[in-house]
Amino acid sequence: MSQRAHSRRSPSNQKSVGPWVLKHGAIRIVQASMLGSVLSNILLVLGCCFLAGGIKHKEQRFNETVASTMSSLMAVSTASLIIPATLYAAMGTSNSKDTKDDNILVLSHGTAIILLILYGLYLVFQLKTHAELFDEESGDNDAEGEGEQHEGQILGPWAAGVALVLVTVMVAVCAEYLVDSIDSIVETAHISRTFIGLILLPIVGNAAEHVTAVVVAMKNKMDLAIGVAIGSSMQIALLVTPFLVVLGWIIDQPMTLHFEIFETVVFFLAVLVTNYLISDGKSNYLEGAMLLGMYIIIGGFATFS
Amino acid sequence: MSQRAHSRRSPSNQKSVGPWVLKHGAIRIVQASMLGSVLSNILLVLGCCFLAGGIKHKEQRFNETVASTMSSLMAVSTASLIIPATLYAAMGTSNSKDTKDDNILVLSHGTAIILLILYGLYLVFQLKTHAELFDEESGDNDAEGEGEQHEGQILGPWAAGVALVLVTVMVAVCAEYLVDSIDSIVETAHISRTFIGLILLPIVGNAAEHVTAVVVAMKNKMDLAIGVAIGSSMQIALLVTPFLVVLGWIIDQPMTLHFEIFETVVFFLAVLVTNYLISDGKSNYLEGAMLLGMYIIIGGFATFS
Amino acid sequence: MSQRAHSRRSPSNQKSVGPWVLKHGAIRIVQASMLGSVLSNILLVLGCCFLAGGIKHKEQRFNETVASTMSSLMAVSTASLIIPATLYAAMGTSNSKDTKDDNILVLSHGTAIILLILYGLYLVFQLKTHAELFDEESGDNDAEGEGEQHEGQILGPWAAGVALVLVTVMVAVCAEYLVDSIDSIVETAHISRTFIGLILLPIVGNAAEHVTAVVVAMKNKMDLAIGVAIGSSMQIALLVTPFLVVLGWIIDQPMTLHFEIFETVVFFLAVLVTNYLISDGKSNYLEGAMLLGMYIIIGGFATFS
Repeated sequence: MSQRAHSRRSPSNQKSVGPWVLKHGAIRIVQASMLGSVLSNILLVLGCCFLAGGIKHKEQRFNETVASTMSSLMAVSTASLIIPATLYAAMGTSNSKDTKDDNILVLSHGTAIILLILYGLYLVFQLKTHAELFDEESGDNDAEGEGEQHEGQILGPWAAGVALVLVTVMVAVCAEYLVDSIDSIVETAHISRTFIGLILLPIVGNAAEHVTAVVVAMKNKMDLAIGVAIGSSMQIALLVTPFLVVLGWIIDQPMTLHFEIFETVVFFLAVLVTNYLISDGKSNYLEGAMLLGMYIIIGGFATFS
Repeated sequence: MSQRAHSRRSPSNQKSVGPWVLKHGAIRIVQASMLGSVLSNILLVLGCCFLAGGIKHKEQRFNETVASTMSSLMAVSTASLIIPATLYAAMGTSNSKDTKDDNILVLSHGTAIILLILYGLYLVFQLKTHAELFDEESGDNDAEGEGEQHEGQILGPWAAGVALVLVTVMVAVCAEYLVDSIDSIVETAHISRTFIGLILLPIVGNAAEHVTAVVVAMKNKMDLAIGVAIGSSMQIALLVTPFLVVLGWIIDQPMTLHFEIFETVVFFLAVLVTNYLISDGKSNYLEGAMLLGMYIIIGGFATFS
Repeated sequence: MSQRAHSRRSPSNQKSVGPWVLKHGAIRIVQASMLGSVLSNILLVLGCCFLAGGIKHKEQRFNETVASTMSSLMAVSTASLIIPATLYAAMGTSNSKDTKDDNILVLSHGTAIILLILYGLYLVFQLKTHAELFDEESGDNDAEGEGEQHEGQILGPWAAGVALVLVTVMVAVCAEYLVDSIDSIVETAHISRTFIGLILLPIVGNAAEHVTAVVVAMKNKMDLAIGVAIGSSMQIALLVTPFLVVLGWIIDQPMTLHFEIFETVVFFLAVLVTNYLISDGKSNYLEGAMLLGMYIIIGGFATFS
């Protein structure tokens, strides 16, 4: 693993702690925290939304088309992680480990570009050609503007701005500290690296969205809550992760889409269950409890992996 | 494997032969018969219902909400079996077998408790907070009471009572005999242990529900048939199996949620196909034939595994 | 592998190059080209249909019932490939390779027969008992006859006849040449055998359907386009592949349903994503791009496997 000390920095990105870590070559932690962000968004955040919203409201409805478009993209991104993992396992021992890693790296670069193109197309789809599908979503609730810009209006522009800055600073500081001290944590607290990357970091890193999503879910603005939860995970799966692969390509770090088998399977199951639960366009507290239950089970197993 | 001869007995349970076997420490047979009960319910029983009902009626409809709630819970329980199996495989050879088994055991206990909580929440959901969703189901058909209590009314209270007692006694006797003589069967008839646990025992153990479900399906009471078939498998997946894990914890038997890889994959595929077939709220004979076809294929492969 | 030189020929079959190759015993190429045909139909052809149609038309609708019946059958056929692969992996090293292969062969014969029965039932379902479901599909569009016979009417009977003969001859010639020269291609062009079987052969072999499907999709006859794309893959999965297994049984070639693990997983993911995308009965260009993206990713990885 060549570690040229490029000083290049990625554009600021409050969604994940990825870029800071990548340049130290700690690929595994980056991969785990990417997947962990997706998991915490679609299981923990969405689960809390469904549970908190479901306790206040008997049944909550949301725009199926939007939810199903996003979850289709999640399914494609899941496939793009399972295929390398399977190929790696299937290549067996006949090829040397280096040849396998090189092949996977080349293929990851190609796959990352395709995922970025799909994300670009999704933006065109959402903002230009099929924008009315996505506007429709707020129609039923409160006739506001579109997408994630809502958040400001709900908290008031000043409160929201201050909150966002505060939380971002907190998250960035925490993330820097966490990443710097992961090794000592692993040794001292006997917590597995997978648990830190998959569970701890993402919870801290997504605190802002988490709170927002639950608050709006309790106000029965489910389209917004789902936009935050699934939208964020989609962004990580189709924008941040492929972007980091391309960034790794540029700064010569072997960042691939070949994740650990445990992480890949867990990601697949989480997406499958979530897609299944949102496919009917309705939610209730039981569905929230199922998502939270899955998150706790995965978290438990991650401590030992 | 410590075999303390506890005399403790589980509450009587006619759904499965589990408790009797568990105390002899035959964990593998218990696991196989748990999974086999689920398989026989969602593939064999549901397949027969769809086929028999579909031959008499062109298209049969049922309450989608109820079916999808139950199948979501099945999906979560599937995930709770796949995660330990994956973790076990992923831990590889770096850890000793004992450490792996210990970790899986601890995590199985935690997972079992979460599944039991989810089952409890499901009961609250079905009987209290969202009972009208589940009442609705019989509305279309015949305006009767709720859920499995129907069975009595269909057969008449006396006939049903006698039938239930008879069948339960038969099942219990058969089960005792079967379990006691499994070793000799394996040796004499050259049938694999997996086939006995996965196919033979569950068919015997679920005979009562099987007949009931097919009879009501032919009377076009599909909600009831689905309630029996999927409801039973859900009960096994979320109540009986986690209960046995907890029971094993109490009587110090290493009953885990780590099933054989073949069984886990087969369970996952069965739940996936079934969920897919019931998601439209309609059934016909072709769907019944697909479920039966899958059951026969799985049964065939189980004889060799 | 016994290679009795039977001169028996299969009924002419322009869907695939299977029978010609099978008698040379090149089982692996046949398996890969079967799977490849399915993949190219449900990802490449359907993706092109959705993309080309979606660029001309904002949203296209199709008969959900027909699509979901076909994709349920695809799901069952996927399961029938995953189960042998899993069993093979699960049997581990305790059994000798020969015993494993023999068991898988016997089970493949049984499974093939079940798949052929399901295909037969599907024909009865489509043409006899539930024909009105499948007629309905053209109702919205243009009030024409049923199913694949449309193609002629769209191109005009003469043009279509000539085109079909020309393309079939071309395909057969190409296929013969390709199969005869695969070994030299593998050596000269350094392309993997999997890539040839999974990607190259099927694209050539399905050129006719491919063009037809895209043309009708652009005319907004989505039911016909889906009938061609998914109908073809279903035919391959439930008719051609099991037929070849039975043919292999007759001419004593060990053709099984045990595919390479990479192919099996890729097939499963493709069916899963496709089923998910068509389950809402609507399509747009973004869904087309997702399918094409998946095809390109799979094609890339196939070059290295």
